[in-house]
Amino acid sequence: MAVNLAAPAPDSLFTVDGIRLATASAGIKKPGRKDVVLIELAEGTNSAAVYTTNAFCAAPVTLAKAHQAATATRYLLINSGNANAGTGEAGMAAAKACCQAVAEVMSSQAEAVLPFSTGVIGQPLPVDKITAVLPEAREALSADNWFNAAHAIMTTDTIAKARSVQLELDGKTITITGMSKGSGMIRPDMATMLAYIATDAAVSQPVLSAMLQQAMNQSFNRITVDGDTSTNDACVLMATGKAGNAEIDSITSDDGERLLTALTDLCRYLAQAIVRDGEGATKFISIAVKQGRHEDECRQVAYTIAHSPLVKTALFASDPNWGRILAAVGRSGIEDFDLNGVSIYLDEVCIVDHGQPAASYTEEQGQTVMNQAEITITVDLERGQAEDLVWTCDFSYDYVKINAEYRT
Amino acid sequence: MAVNLAAPAPDSLFTVDGIRLATASAGIKKPGRKDVVLIELAEGTNSAAVYTTNAFCAAPVTLAKAHQAATATRYLLINSGNANAGTGEAGMAAAKACCQAVAEVMSSQAEAVLPFSTGVIGQPLPVDKITAVLPEAREALSADNWFNAAHAIMTTDTIAKARSVQLELDGKTITITGMSKGSGMIRPDMATMLAYIATDAAVSQPVLSAMLQQAMNQSFNRITVDGDTSTNDACVLMATGKAGNAEIDSITSDDGERLLTALTDLCRYLAQAIVRDGEGATKFISIAVKQGRHEDECRQVAYTIAHSPLVKTALFASDPNWGRILAAVGRSGIEDFDLNGVSIYLDEVCIVDHGQPAASYTEEQGQTVMNQAEITITVDLERGQAEDLVWTCDFSYDYVKINAEYRT
Repeated sequence: MAVNLAAPAPDSLFTVDGIRLATASAGIKKPGRKDVVLIELAEGTNSAAVYTTNAFCAAPVTLAKAHQAATATRYLLINSGNANAGTGEAGMAAAKACCQAVAEVMSSQAEAVLPFSTGVIGQPLPVDKITAVLPEAREALSADNWFNAAHAIMTTDTIAKARSVQLELDGKTITITGMSKGSGMIRPDMATMLAYIATDAAVSQPVLSAMLQQAMNQSFNRITVDGDTSTNDACVLMATGKAGNAEIDSITSDDGERLLTALTDLCRYLAQAIVRDGEGATKFISIAVKQGRHEDECRQVAYTIAHSPLVKTALFASDPNWGRILAAVGRSGIEDFDLNGVSIYLDEVCIVDHGQPAASYTEEQGQTVMNQAEITITVDLERGQAEDLVWTCDFSYDYVKINAEYRT
Repeated sequence: MAVNLAAPAPDSLFTVDGIRLATASAGIKKPGRKDVVLIELAEGTNSAAVYTTNAFCAAPVTLAKAHQAATATRYLLINSGNANAGTGEAGMAAAKACCQAVAEVMSSQAEAVLPFSTGVIGQPLPVDKITAVLPEAREALSADNWFNAAHAIMTTDTIAKARSVQLELDGKTITITGMSKGSGMIRPDMATMLAYIATDAAVSQPVLSAMLQQAMNQSFNRITVDGDTSTNDACVLMATGKAGNAEIDSITSDDGERLLTALTDLCRYLAQAIVRDGEGATKFISIAVKQGRHEDECRQVAYTIAHSPLVKTALFASDPNWGRILAAVGRSGIEDFDLNGVSIYLDEVCIVDHGQPAASYTEEQGQTVMNQAEITITVDLERGQAEDLVWTCDFSYDYVKINAEYRT
């Protein structure tokens, strides 16, 4: 049960001129399930991508980086059901074979294809099953397949994650549509789970890359489900330029700032959707750390709370056992830590006031906050001007069940 | 159900000449349960202690450090059922009141008493209940109460943890007896959960402190259940000198080395007992990292595996989903990481051979290892001579149940 998250209505997703998508059933893990997505980028589309920082990154991640550096990207090939990670040289050969097959079917070149895989780690990728459905995918390419594609990239996700926004730039209507997937092994780090975002705005290549990085830092790089950074994280941003606006060549221009704001909002929605649909999640938790010396230490405190199994199980139980939050703050390891400055809040309820139990606190107040499906934990360090924010979920029986009973 | 851990037989615990213990029922959390332990150290006993590094350390920890610095320790007062942590100035006043009461009952001074508390965080300590049972405890002081004391310090522990060893030094029979408690909020860091170890050997104060630190580093500082460092961790080592051996004044002397070895073995048993009885544990896992550049990076890799919820749930399910181990190694963040050197083993079964999936690996081999209650995961980094080892347990439904349904 995702927390306060509805599936997108099919007609809420706008097409992006210059982007066509197709889905197909290759039977990679389950027969009959749509598990392959092919995305075509019109000639002239600029694209940027960020990838996992996991040293054991998957073969498709390594190959996508190399292809992106070699030439302009024209196709994305995504499969769910198998991560093609931990598969060594055979995995690299499999990823190359898939790209080559797309190039042949689409009369393109292999370097113009970026491969992405998500699913179980350490199993051989069934290349033949994937390449067999490519001719069918070519025929199915259509601009209005975002809804179907968002479903086909799911693994343990219980709900598809996609959204569109529109804004006016340079007198033109600009569309941004994006989709993401992810539920477990979620602690993106300078990268994301799989996410694909396209706009018809004209944006220069360097500005597009900078926008992607900035939007990521305010969205996908601020979420965690279980602290486990995946081997396959990737996020791709595409700009087709078909809207006809004057190309945006500065991120600080008026149009650049407005596009970045819209992009960041959309990425934040998609990132939060991953947490809301986190494995076994019953609550959506925002952790805000304020008045730190720098953003790094704010994040350090926030992630220590967000990764504490004791905090996460107390949140699941709606137990205002705030001692566990205090213990997590205390072990977060920031330098020269003076507890006399620390105040902690559950929503607006103060539980620790300058290092002391808040005199005004009552168990009833804490219980009222904890009973909610969405809770904000705020830690005020009172030692600087920096602040940062991460989003996470609770830790339930179903998290154990999902990860113990099924091999994902 | 603790993993391959039996309760100590009462007659397996030897008395330590110079140490007397008593238990009493103060009704701190549950009526009728023994929840207070008083330990008396004979005059002339040397003692050393290490404490939690959690910045939000509990009032009794702060006070014990101050008392230890002020004068020779004669009494330890331990209560379970309430941690007296996160209790601010009132908590410090409560801890002081308890020490003062012991001093009055025993005709000693407050600074000679070290207070220790374990249990729920953030609740006021019921001082009156504790002080009310002190006269009864004084009458009950006896050398052969280690078995009862090991039970009285338990919280979510399912089994008492204690052990005795004897060795010959300087022609004398030396006894070491120790007890520990802990099950959740376990990731000691330069400290431990509660543990109390006494010997009748004569050991000089500086050597005793050095021995405690060295033994800790090879035992309590190598375990983790859930990554959460407690606010109340403490370990005390006492040496009464009653055995009559010549005082050990060098840790590198023959007798010093033999005592340290025996002490380290006993500490390792008590530390591993905490993991075997970790909240919800069904498996005992050793994680060995070899051929690292230095011990720090070996521990970094080992703890990343040990704290991964995905690895821990796979261990619970006996699922040889080794991709999760590989992903944890990959995100452990060690410098200049060359995967081509990395090999990973489940017991003797190679799963990753120099960065590639092991050609010899079969699912049956992996399954056979994973079905066991005790498993060793070995990671060979092939980039140096250092190695280190940590012990942990799996992550089960019962972990969530224990921490969601009860306020510990």
